[in-house]
Amino acid sequence: MSDVTSALLAALGPDRVRVGSDIPVRNHADASGLTPTPPQALLLPRTTDDVAAALRICHEHGQPVVTQGGMTGLAGGAHPQTGEIALSLERMTGVEEIDEASGTLTALAGTPLAVIQKAAEEAGLMCGIDLGARGSCTIGGNIATNAGGNQVLRYGMARRNVLGLEVVLADGRVVRSLNKMLKNNAGYDWTQLFIGSEGTLGVVTRVVLGLHPRPQGIQTALCAVNGFPAALKVLRALERRFPGRLLVFEGMWREFMDVATGPGGLARPFAADHDLCLLIEVAMGEDGPDAFAGFLSEVYESGAVEDALVAQSEADRAKFWAYRESPYEYGRYLPKLIGFDVSIPLARMPEAIEALRQRIPERWPDAVHVAFGHIADSNIHVTVARQGMDAATYRSIEGVVYDIVAELGGSISAEHGIGRNKRPYLHISRTEPELALMATIKQALDPRGLLNPGRVL
Amino acid sequence: MSDVTSALLAALGPDRVRVGSDIPVRNHADASGLTPTPPQALLLPRTTDDVAAALRICHEHGQPVVTQGGMTGLAGGAHPQTGEIALSLERMTGVEEIDEASGTLTALAGTPLAVIQKAAEEAGLMCGIDLGARGSCTIGGNIATNAGGNQVLRYGMARRNVLGLEVVLADGRVVRSLNKMLKNNAGYDWTQLFIGSEGTLGVVTRVVLGLHPRPQGIQTALCAVNGFPAALKVLRALERRFPGRLLVFEGMWREFMDVATGPGGLARPFAADHDLCLLIEVAMGEDGPDAFAGFLSEVYESGAVEDALVAQSEADRAKFWAYRESPYEYGRYLPKLIGFDVSIPLARMPEAIEALRQRIPERWPDAVHVAFGHIADSNIHVTVARQGMDAATYRSIEGVVYDIVAELGGSISAEHGIGRNKRPYLHISRTEPELALMATIKQALDPRGLLNPGRVL
Ligand SMILES: Cc1cc2nc3c(=O)[nH]c(=O)nc-3n(C[C@H](O)[C@H](O)[C@H](O)COP(=O)(O)OP(=O)(O)OC[C@H]3O[C@@H](n4cnc5c(N)ncnc54)[C@H](O)[C@@H]3O)c2cc1C
Ligand SMILES: Cc1cc2nc3c(=O)[nH]c(=O)nc-3n(C[C@H](O)[C@H](O)[C@H](O)COP(=O)(O)OP(=O)(O)OC[C@H]3O[C@@H](n4cnc5c(N)ncnc54)[C@H](O)[C@@H]3O)c2cc1C
Repeated sequence: MSDVTSALLAALGPDRVRVGSDIPVRNHADASGLTPTPPQALLLPRTTDDVAAALRICHEHGQPVVTQGGMTGLAGGAHPQTGEIALSLERMTGVEEIDEASGTLTALAGTPLAVIQKAAEEAGLMCGIDLGARGSCTIGGNIATNAGGNQVLRYGMARRNVLGLEVVLADGRVVRSLNKMLKNNAGYDWTQLFIGSEGTLGVVTRVVLGLHPRPQGIQTALCAVNGFPAALKVLRALERRFPGRLLVFEGMWREFMDVATGPGGLARPFAADHDLCLLIEVAMGEDGPDAFAGFLSEVYESGAVEDALVAQSEADRAKFWAYRESPYEYGRYLPKLIGFDVSIPLARMPEAIEALRQRIPERWPDAVHVAFGHIADSNIHVTVARQGMDAATYRSIEGVVYDIVAELGGSISAEHGIGRNKRPYLHISRTEPELALMATIKQALDPRGLLNPGRVL
Repeated sequence: MSDVTSALLAALGPDRVRVGSDIPVRNHADASGLTPTPPQALLLPRTTDDVAAALRICHEHGQPVVTQGGMTGLAGGAHPQTGEIALSLERMTGVEEIDEASGTLTALAGTPLAVIQKAAEEAGLMCGIDLGARGSCTIGGNIATNAGGNQVLRYGMARRNVLGLEVVLADGRVVRSLNKMLKNNAGYDWTQLFIGSEGTLGVVTRVVLGLHPRPQGIQTALCAVNGFPAALKVLRALERRFPGRLLVFEGMWREFMDVATGPGGLARPFAADHDLCLLIEVAMGEDGPDAFAGFLSEVYESGAVEDALVAQSEADRAKFWAYRESPYEYGRYLPKLIGFDVSIPLARMPEAIEALRQRIPERWPDAVHVAFGHIADSNIHVTVARQGMDAATYRSIEGVVYDIVAELGGSISAEHGIGRNKRPYLHISRTEPELALMATIKQALDPRGLLNPGRVL
């Protein structure tokens, strides 16, 4: 047993420090698809003091640490590398307070997002963060990755929902601002540094979130439009007509719908083929469904929308969402695939789709390629699947997609983060001076480079 | 002439470098009330390259620099100290682009806020930042102070409206991310560091803002309620009923209304006296005024609201706003005053008002004290006025107010920032580890301490 592990055991006890076969396999891998790797030891702190003691000892020993939340990350950030000690927040769970007057929720960072959502709902409020991994991902992981999701349009990324944080720095110091106030310009808002920096600058141990009133009277529609400019027209009309009520505006291009209704086995929603299908949700409050149906008729008559369906029941709504969620099933019926999570400035989106439609079939005529996602947020997911996908093809496809992103001034990561997987491509979205500034920040906060080494930078 | 001034003159020419009596008095003082002080020299860059060249030279010479925007800041951040060189953004003005598809606006940092608002409006959109100083303050100053204002409730502080920045670092390096995408998790969002750090970490030279659809059908009401808990009830009911439509929710306590309708000379809005008056604006869109009037009847019948007036015309609306804006006239009819801009967690607001009402008259029976402000944002302004206000009284009053803030876990600066004026009190709202972390950030970005020295930290 190494010196550092002995010191950790002495300080925290065997319940909080696991080694060898006592480390569960769940802590060997996150959702990124990298080869599972056992960490040198697993730390299971129960309190912020435990985290502080652990990081102090690792710091003294120059021991690299990888922080683990719900392990649902897709970029390899929480995935152990040989020789790292894993620090998992899985025991630091619990909603500590809901302050109804302030509209805030305070929780330990290891609390699963779904638990937070439920607590907020029970208080008649809503958490603005929501994503598919809600049952497993942790609020600390959401903040560390500045997670997006389905409602960014309305409630912003994780960043916008954070009011206060407690963080343990690389050397074990605890910094705390459990701020509940919407406005607090007393000095630097240092909490911003820890949001979206994927655990490379500190370990988040406690969070204060601002909550929202629960949206009422949700209406769901599936609309067919002839391309992205028409979708933008519908988006802007919705924003003008129902300001602050638009919750969801997801796009699914033709190829995506072909897969969902072909091998995916879902029913074709419309009689004709359309270039782009939109999944739209609006919180109509007390206005009821008529105003929404009226709006849809208008955009239909204006020619922006070619066809539209409004959900008449929860069952209809589930049917509409099934298209959007069909990629969760790709493993069942598509060959080996590679997924992208990129942003493209809205003004350049048609060029991006055009380029994908040209360059992927040109190089790989047998490949399946689809594009879909949170188009109002400039965020699309692209999936390319192909028989006989080897490492070289994988890299070539990455090259083609990231070339398009670079040409159009997009971002190689809209919401999933950089982690280990996208680190080699960070320069595509960031200039040298930006990378140097990021390195300066890292150096200031973690001068020995012990927190999540090799992630992001 | 000093070495550094000669070097600056050589590099930038006499048009861009002013000394002695060529420095206009507007650059001697900001709106903080500190004694006007001429800077050693005034730099008037026209381009980012000019700013970079200037900072490079100052850095080489160890020359302190104070950055100046519109000089409307109330905390003394842009106010020169003896020996400093002032760098004014006043010539770097202009909206460079409005990208309607992306809903973004790109401008030079010295552009007055009102110019940006107008450009956005002309494109059928709206800038989410608005404050009383709109005609003079600059977008760079708004971002450097993370400005608040009247619509934070709906559009957030300046921070939430920023998508991209171009910044010149202390040593003259230019860092640029003119991002237009709502989602971009490619590495650290370093722009966050420069928002709200009041020019102590870098000079903002260019900004990209996200714009909003223009709110339609604005309804304005003045409501009387019996104390803060009733106001909170109205607020939460509004948020539930008109989600995303509530634009303004300002509070004015009894003493405030007494001054406005006494020496201020405005007509009393209601027959009876009430503890708290609310100024409310809601964007009703196409729903028209009936739904809003209906809501007000309901809250009146529920007992939460004691009396209410709805503006029937723009003239009415202006009348209602005149109460809220009456403090701009205090100089005319109140004795010497001291103003505070504090945040109090919403759950503690009644205690804050109670404590003010007890402690100010107890110590200074002849003082006038009023409280008002952006109460939905947890932000209140407090003004205390008194004949014979000397420096000692001034400090005692500060002591009383900041004690209340400290006891209730509030913030000594909600929106105006720390600058020079509030620096001695920063420890009230921030712990030692937080201050140490801020110092670490400052040291990393400006190791020689040349940018806005003595501000914030
Ligand atoms: C089915 C599915 C759907 C998804 N949908 C979305 C989506 O819509 N939007 C989206 O943005 N992402 C999505 N993701 C990705 C993932 O769920 C998010 O990134 C999530 O925020 C990660 O949370 P986690 O707790 O699982 O973090 P982990 O995977 O455990 O860690 C992620 C990163 O954060 C760091 N970290 C974790 N906890 C802490 C902490 N307490 N302090 C400091 N650093 C920490 C880790 O070191 C790592 O770098 C999805 C994933 C899956 C599997
Ligand atoms: C009538 C009136 C009403 C006001 N109402 C509000 C309000 O409702 N909400 C609110 O928040 N504030 C308010 N203020 C305060 C003030 O207007 C804001 O702080 C504003 O954002 C300052 O902008 P400015 O351009 O005047 O900055 P300045 O006063 O010139 O500078 C303010 C600070 O920012 C720094 N700075 C300025 N430009 C840059 C730049 N380009 N790069 C880096 N640093 C820079 C300066 O060094 C200084 O520290 C009000 C002031 C007045 C006079």
